[in-house]
Amino acid sequence: MSVHPFDLAIALDAVAPGRYRGHTSTAYANMIGPFGGITAAQLLAAVLRTDDRHGTPLACTVNFLAPVADGEFILSVRKTRQNNSSQHWLVELLQGDDPDPRANATVITALRRETWNAIEIPHPPVPPAADVAVTEKPALMRWPDSYEFRFIEGGFPSRSEGPELKSSCTIAWMRDQPPRPLDFPALMSLSDSFFPRVFVRRPRWVPAGTMSITTYFHCTDTDLAAVGASHLLAIANGQVFNGGFFDQTAHLWSDGGQCLATSHQIVYFKE
Amino acid sequence: MSVHPFDLAIALDAVAPGRYRGHTSTAYANMIGPFGGITAAQLLAAVLRTDDRHGTPLACTVNFLAPVADGEFILSVRKTRQNNSSQHWLVELLQGDDPDPRANATVITALRRETWNAIEIPHPPVPPAADVAVTEKPALMRWPDSYEFRFIEGGFPSRSEGPELKSSCTIAWMRDQPPRPLDFPALMSLSDSFFPRVFVRRPRWVPAGTMSITTYFHCTDTDLAAVGASHLLAIANGQVFNGGFFDQTAHLWSDGGQCLATSHQIVYFKE
Repeated sequence: MSVHPFDLAIALDAVAPGRYRGHTSTAYANMIGPFGGITAAQLLAAVLRTDDRHGTPLACTVNFLAPVADGEFILSVRKTRQNNSSQHWLVELLQGDDPDPRANATVITALRRETWNAIEIPHPPVPPAADVAVTEKPALMRWPDSYEFRFIEGGFPSRSEGPELKSSCTIAWMRDQPPRPLDFPALMSLSDSFFPRVFVRRPRWVPAGTMSITTYFHCTDTDLAAVGASHLLAIANGQVFNGGFFDQTAHLWSDGGQCLATSHQIVYFKE
Repeated sequence: MSVHPFDLAIALDAVAPGRYRGHTSTAYANMIGPFGGITAAQLLAAVLRTDDRHGTPLACTVNFLAPVADGEFILSVRKTRQNNSSQHWLVELLQGDDPDPRANATVITALRRETWNAIEIPHPPVPPAADVAVTEKPALMRWPDSYEFRFIEGGFPSRSEGPELKSSCTIAWMRDQPPRPLDFPALMSLSDSFFPRVFVRRPRWVPAGTMSITTYFHCTDTDLAAVGASHLLAIANGQVFNGGFFDQTAHLWSDGGQCLATSHQIVYFKE
């Protein structure tokens, strides 16, 4: 049985205490360099590889500082604080002789307890994944081939210019392609799988890229095991576009109606 | 003329290259230790104090790693990346002999350009600030005395238990008390000025605290100068409460209708 491309992408070799060597993945290539979601997943995977980690991911902020070049990278992981029920981590992605990181992340891992639970964000009425057609992908970059998209609202940004829309909302059933049981790195990557909202809102391709993404996890390993390889309901919305930057939010739901993750990112764009 | 308490709170002494000494402020004290918003403002202020910073804040993620003790602290600032139109920063708050930071922040500063602008989040219909009564504060901690709150929806959490609400939404006009011209550190602090949504949603005081906050700025110095000391429309909503943690979002609007900042935070709570 062959190894799933996502597992190959997040595979890390321990080269020294707190240092792991990884490699960019052609299956998750963007137009230039890797898809940001896979870089985010690799940074989170480094924390999960440490010997003294306890708990599961609660929050992960990834900053994209400079383009990641195709090839090897080193992930340097530092535990910045150990508390009774949580740990804080700082991860840096380094390449070649460059003394500055190309990406970094702050991560919180924590032990969850059974408590009063509630979901305040709306879950839109949607047809089941099986009733929504799989969308053909634009052949512009590789990484979308590693996901299955079934769009309910919105879709891939058009390559031709169109009139400005009032909303950049996208609603889709999504999962890894080929299907793969969900884990935290995959959920992190999925939280960054939404095209820049500026492409959707004002149909026109312009240079754009995520500068920082923060994802909050609302689930345990048990919750993710229950999801398995089924589809997630993925919802993204733009917020404020100003001065060459904008932010967008995302909600990722299991098909059982649990909100597994909420995410927020800031993106640059050029005209 | 006396110095504003906020200016005293964010005052920093340069003690070495990239190292600044600050001091907690009794005007912004929480029940135990400082209000998280003032700590976040201090971390951001350290970046703004550096000699080689260009641009204005675009994104600021602050992680609260351990309680900040009343008294002095050192802010250690490192520029992690210099790009043409943006800079990335890492700030750590250190106290006493503790080798680990008590708080840290990743900050992006950037040069904004005039571009196509849009706001996709809703601005609720609200009466002007002058038509909304100033709310009396609960005498539980000091920091709310440093703000003026005029609640339109929601209010200070009740000290008595009540039935669970369907929404934790709060809408209020807010500003510094005494009034002070808005700047980025003040906007950062205001973005953390919302009580934990769990107190509002399920009226009951329980131990709770922000673990990480991310604020995105959608404004320039010129925009903030136009706001001056007028009120901001502040809107907060809870998202997902699960396993002893929840996240909440915030939007901060000028009274002229510009969305100045959007924010997202993850909070622990105990039952």
